[in-house]
Amino acid sequence: MLVEGKHYRTIWPNKDLSDVTIIDQTYLPFEFKLRQLRSLEEVVEAIKFMRVRGAPLIGVTASYGIAIALTENSSDQSLTAAKNLLIESRPTAINLSWAVNFTYNQLKNEPINNRVSLAWELANKLANEDVEINRNIGEFGLKLIKKVKKNRINILTHCNAGWLATIDHGTALSPVYRAFKEGLDIHVWVDETRPRNQGMNLTAWELDQANIPHTIITDNAGGLLMQRGEVDLVLVGADRVSIDGNVCNKIGTYLKALAAKTDKIPFYVAAPISTIDSSYLGENNLFDIECRDEDEILKVKGIDASNKITEVRIGYSSAYNPAFDITPSKYISKIICEKGIYSPINIGKALK
Amino acid sequence: MLVEGKHYRTIWPNKDLSDVTIIDQTYLPFEFKLRQLRSLEEVVEAIKFMRVRGAPLIGVTASYGIAIALTENSSDQSLTAAKNLLIESRPTAINLSWAVNFTYNQLKNEPINNRVSLAWELANKLANEDVEINRNIGEFGLKLIKKVKKNRINILTHCNAGWLATIDHGTALSPVYRAFKEGLDIHVWVDETRPRNQGMNLTAWELDQANIPHTIITDNAGGLLMQRGEVDLVLVGADRVSIDGNVCNKIGTYLKALAAKTDKIPFYVAAPISTIDSSYLGENNLFDIECRDEDEILKVKGIDASNKITEVRIGYSSAYNPAFDITPSKYISKIICEKGIYSPINIGKALK
Repeated sequence: MLVEGKHYRTIWPNKDLSDVTIIDQTYLPFEFKLRQLRSLEEVVEAIKFMRVRGAPLIGVTASYGIAIALTENSSDQSLTAAKNLLIESRPTAINLSWAVNFTYNQLKNEPINNRVSLAWELANKLANEDVEINRNIGEFGLKLIKKVKKNRINILTHCNAGWLATIDHGTALSPVYRAFKEGLDIHVWVDETRPRNQGMNLTAWELDQANIPHTIITDNAGGLLMQRGEVDLVLVGADRVSIDGNVCNKIGTYLKALAAKTDKIPFYVAAPISTIDSSYLGENNLFDIECRDEDEILKVKGIDASNKITEVRIGYSSAYNPAFDITPSKYISKIICEKGIYSPINIGKALK
Repeated sequence: MLVEGKHYRTIWPNKDLSDVTIIDQTYLPFEFKLRQLRSLEEVVEAIKFMRVRGAPLIGVTASYGIAIALTENSSDQSLTAAKNLLIESRPTAINLSWAVNFTYNQLKNEPINNRVSLAWELANKLANEDVEINRNIGEFGLKLIKKVKKNRINILTHCNAGWLATIDHGTALSPVYRAFKEGLDIHVWVDETRPRNQGMNLTAWELDQANIPHTIITDNAGGLLMQRGEVDLVLVGADRVSIDGNVCNKIGTYLKALAAKTDKIPFYVAAPISTIDSSYLGENNLFDIECRDEDEILKVKGIDASNKITEVRIGYSSAYNPAFDITPSKYISKIICEKGIYSPINIGKALK
């Protein structure tokens, strides 16, 4: 997508295939900064520190991480070590282990002297496939947006499932970009998405770059807006989807799903097939939910009076910071993936 | 309640009955600052700027505002002007207009030379009554907390309905203080309560001063905690209650009520009878919901590296900031007031 009129992806390999460049998302919306990742350690750090985030993007980044690790040392040991380190870097997004295992499995039986070029090829392939997947999600999602028979269509989204969460186009925002291109009169309510404010920092910035009308709201406000008829549909991404359609996504998603159900507002999840966890069934068998540092809640970064990025402490007591929650399938109207639109209960069929 | 071991109310008249002192809540939890209010204008500013907030406290503050105005000029004109200015200072809390109208009605037929002393007497009376009311709410609420048959009782609260929202004791937190005094093993999940963070800034500070175990969570997290069985009851205050039990309270309350209903967790509202709006019936007839400045969302105050209170801008796009939402009575288990525990649908009976 465009940043000040110039096309970018969120990650790309440098020409000599030794390292990659990412958009360092920890500086947005205050500064647009690129960053080179030149070693496995730098890749792991970028995933953990959330310089790159979003389930599809961390999957592809990890695949590039294997290529970078093998470029340095293409032994079996190096390959296995890279695989383990990357899978552990963040626990929730199934795409991460999916992409790492896919890359690993293609490489492990390959002669050592072939591995480096193949690894870069595989990572590039995953990146290009992600772009194509999201383009398809955009087309299918457009159909659902078009079902709203109103002059202005109000869409609520939580967190960032835009192009910054993927290689390009985004998952939940891909239909939004597509609908805007189609000339539909859309407006997006952007949940700020505490504690890390990915809605306020990333989604609002993306939509602003694309000139799409949008308004930031607190995570508390969506219920009232739905009660008042000011939301026509909810569209979110996913970090993991069980084969019977329960969705693990950014903390707070579940509360919006409850409100949407109550007011009979369609609640759509957009996610690539790689997000589906075939080992997981049922809403009660809880996903492994990442619990992050309390300082993500107790400290906030912003721009001070002298225009400098400054971190301030906003709270003193201890805090508890689970990063995801689970929305049971019964609250989800449809799941959109690259193959089409599925009832959540049937999403497993997309795997076939 | 205690601040570093010393007893305070949130507002008190100075000895010569010409002005009042408040705890300026805009500095908490960073600094504990007192502030004198010496004119009607300063009282209105303190209410609008939320130096004092919380439905019961702004009611009493407004009553002191009339006394201060009359001390300067006790004419009919001055009395009426004060009444109108105070009622307009914040629209949602019914206690504000209730307290102002009560004070006004007692004074309007009084000879001018009696008005000043009577006005101070009335404001003091309202303040003392508030303390008594909240003490009673604490006793009734304790019964509901005791119904949880567990070793450790986890209570979730939203916003601040503690002693800082009243003259003393609090509404929703009064039963919590009472239960702690009784020796019950309680722990409070404190919703940070964006955008103004009254949970993080005020509730956590209050509980900390009282040594009550508590943990700050984002407003997004309560749903997950309830799904996991980590919340035994929800206890919130109210800014306005319809006579058939629909509750207008801080934005985000409604989402917690939906989650509590889903997981069959008791959802209690604690509010004095003065919060009941007898002119209002039915959940669809929307309350007048105050919409506040977008900068409350887009800017945040905290402590910077040099220990100075600093405001930083955290977002750039425009924001929409409704301050309250409405929880329909069907999601509320009980309403606790100074007369007892009511089914929401019967709360109107407390008026008799």
